Amino acid sequence: MMMYRCAIREIRTKLEVLDDEFSITYKRNPISSIKSRIKTPLSIYNKLQRLGYDFTEQNIREHLNDVAGIRVICSFIDDIYSVAKLLSDQDDITILRIKDYIQKPKPNGYRSYHMIVEIPVFFAEGKTPMRAEIQIRTIGMDFWASLEHQLRYKKDLGSNEQYELISRKLSECAHAITATDNQMQDIKNLIGEYNEF
Amino acid sequence: MMMYRCAIREIRTKLEVLDDEFSITYKRNPISSIKSRIKTPLSIYNKLQRLGYDFTEQNIREHLNDVAGIRVICSFIDDIYSVAKLLSDQDDITILRIKDYIQKPKPNGYRSYHMIVEIPVFFAEGKTPMRAEIQIRTIGMDFWASLEHQLRYKKDLGSNEQYELISRKLSECAHAITATDNQMQDIKNLIGEYNEF
Amino acid sequence: MMMYRCAIREIRTKLEVLDDEFSITYKRNPISSIKSRIKTPLSIYNKLQRLGYDFTEQNIREHLNDVAGIRVICSFIDDIYSVAKLLSDQDDITILRIKDYIQKPKPNGYRSYHMIVEIPVFFAEGKTPMRAEIQIRTIGMDFWASLEHQLRYKKDLGSNEQYELISRKLSECAHAITATDNQMQDIKNLIGEYNEF
Amino acid sequence: MMMYRCAIREIRTKLEVLDDEFSITYKRNPISSIKSRIKTPLSIYNKLQRLGYDFTEQNIREHLNDVAGIRVICSFIDDIYSVAKLLSDQDDITILRIKDYIQKPKPNGYRSYHMIVEIPVFFAEGKTPMRAEIQIRTIGMDFWASLEHQLRYKKDLGSNEQYELISRKLSECAHAITATDNQMQDIKNLIGEYNEF
Repeated sequence: MMMYRCAIREIRTKLEVLDDEFSITYKRNPISSIKSRIKTPLSIYNKLQRLGYDFTEQNIREHLNDVAGIRVICSFIDDIYSVAKLLSDQDDITILRIKDYIQKPKPNGYRSYHMIVEIPVFFAEGKTPMRAEIQIRTIGMDFWASLEHQLRYKKDLGSNEQYELISRKLSECAHAITATDNQMQDIKNLIGEYNEF
Repeated sequence: MMMYRCAIREIRTKLEVLDDEFSITYKRNPISSIKSRIKTPLSIYNKLQRLGYDFTEQNIREHLNDVAGIRVICSFIDDIYSVAKLLSDQDDITILRIKDYIQKPKPNGYRSYHMIVEIPVFFAEGKTPMRAEIQIRTIGMDFWASLEHQLRYKKDLGSNEQYELISRKLSECAHAITATDNQMQDIKNLIGEYNEF
Repeated sequence: MMMYRCAIREIRTKLEVLDDEFSITYKRNPISSIKSRIKTPLSIYNKLQRLGYDFTEQNIREHLNDVAGIRVICSFIDDIYSVAKLLSDQDDITILRIKDYIQKPKPNGYRSYHMIVEIPVFFAEGKTPMRAEIQIRTIGMDFWASLEHQLRYKKDLGSNEQYELISRKLSECAHAITATDNQMQDIKNLIGEYNEF
Repeated sequence: MMMYRCAIREIRTKLEVLDDEFSITYKRNPISSIKSRIKTPLSIYNKLQRLGYDFTEQNIREHLNDVAGIRVICSFIDDIYSVAKLLSDQDDITILRIKDYIQKPKPNGYRSYHMIVEIPVFFAEGKTPMRAEIQIRTIGMDFWASLEHQLRYKKDLGSNEQYELISRKLSECAHAITATDNQMQDIKNLIGEYNEF
């Protein structure tokens, strides 16, 4: 767990460096906030079971990519792709997988940009490559996801109709947020052009 | 300035206490984040001039209410009113003025709940009443306001048409965000009812 | 527990206000750092048992003064007394008890200034008086206490002679730290006078 | 300046990783606190002038090693050497110079372990090696140094005799602190042995 905590520290530092550099170059911070979490032993155990593996350190390291999770919240959609590109360009980070749920949202309406990365962390006994999942989203996508998450944990309560009703409303709301994110991006682009007159 | 910094500290502590208590009672944090700022000497000077007063400590204390500013970002619209009520109920806080730009948005689309409050701060030489402005908003309102703020500072650049275009788009966007805030509030209410089955 | 956490927040804010004000007036921060802790349910239970009371909320509130604990680390001995006086002068703080282990160190060499205070905390249902223990010490006293604390928890291990040897050495060390604290205070006083030439 | 700020972030992260790992292995944190500072443009200018160089970015990078400064405060003397060794063992850190003012204190009594290091920082345009000075000290050494620093800035005030008096007292105090640091280290070693019975 300590090792994953340290991997998060290293990635967070990389993100802060990028944000700081970006803010000097473009007078604007692409990153609005950064959150992180370590998977609890219980949910690691459950996930390994679901995948059919025993609960061993080796299986954790080989089969789970999201023990260390970092969430990067951006103001605008194009900031998401800027941050992702700046990370990919660093030669000590290996990108293992990318899932772009912004281009292809999940059926329930979930949108976010996911990367599985591997970075070296320096421990007393030497450099160890560690994996982490980085989720990059706008403020609106993040807010939607937190509400949807609350709902999912109440799945088994209530009547089916009510659950369906809420799911449909959440899905409508995802569309509204997408539209708003796009409008905001448009306005930002317009202010940007305007700026260069 | 130090005195206003201390007033902000006291109000921030009151908000953290309320948020903590609320999260125990309702298993949910109404406050998503808190930001604060002290007006710079230059903008204090400018504001006093505009109001026709000299730049003296007494005039600052008597005529300016927003030297100390605190912004409270909530997830849902009804959290805004809960936080405002909990603050108003505290017997050492005096509410000097309330402006509800959520019920009555500004013409440009700005929405937020503003309170001017006075609280006692304990300094070495005794208790001093200090004023501060508290702005309470949803995440969406806050994001919109930050974009609008960027635009306002670029007013004098660019052609009139372009400025008008961006203003119109911002105003449309304010409507979209209001609709989304309302949808999110509806979903929260539905999940809430559902919860009580 | 949440209520004690909030009491700590309020006291910490009061200390930060005092430190900030002091640093403006005297160009120097009397407080080097602030730490806080809440007693664990287990050690609350143990203490109530030792005192012959049942484990009820009322007994906790009436018979325990140190559920909320705050430690203030100062650079110089006279800062300890300045901070204590500034706190005592605030009219919403009630001082319930003072133990000055600097004037009268404990037999093992422990030195620190302890205050039991009561302050009002504003909760949703109204203002509640809460008790807390404030310990004020120099950096040297704090370091000594942390080493002594480590030793105490190893009491039952090892031979008696070894335990005695370490206790004696700790006690000698307490004298050396007292001497150093006094020397540092002298030098500060000399630099201070010097300053006024 | 941003680049040096980022170098500090990277080193701080490395130190936090080491401290975290150490605390898991030995149940004890060797690092009590970490402070950092960037040299101000004025003092960079002054130092370059003193060395006979112009105020250019290249001269800063080539001739100054302490634009980024990190101070690591440890509880015990042997923690200083542990932290230094753990840093030296990392293969992406280059140690450019070491000055051990603990083995060989400065004439005025100053004690501290200084390292000039070079580490790679990942910026948008690629990996850049950055230099920083790391000072590692005990709590006592740090306190002494801060008092001595205050004195040095008052050099030109006051009579010569008074200045001499304070300097002599500071030097005596440095000896007392060294003695105390050694006593504390002895006690820690005794508690440690004791522990293994």
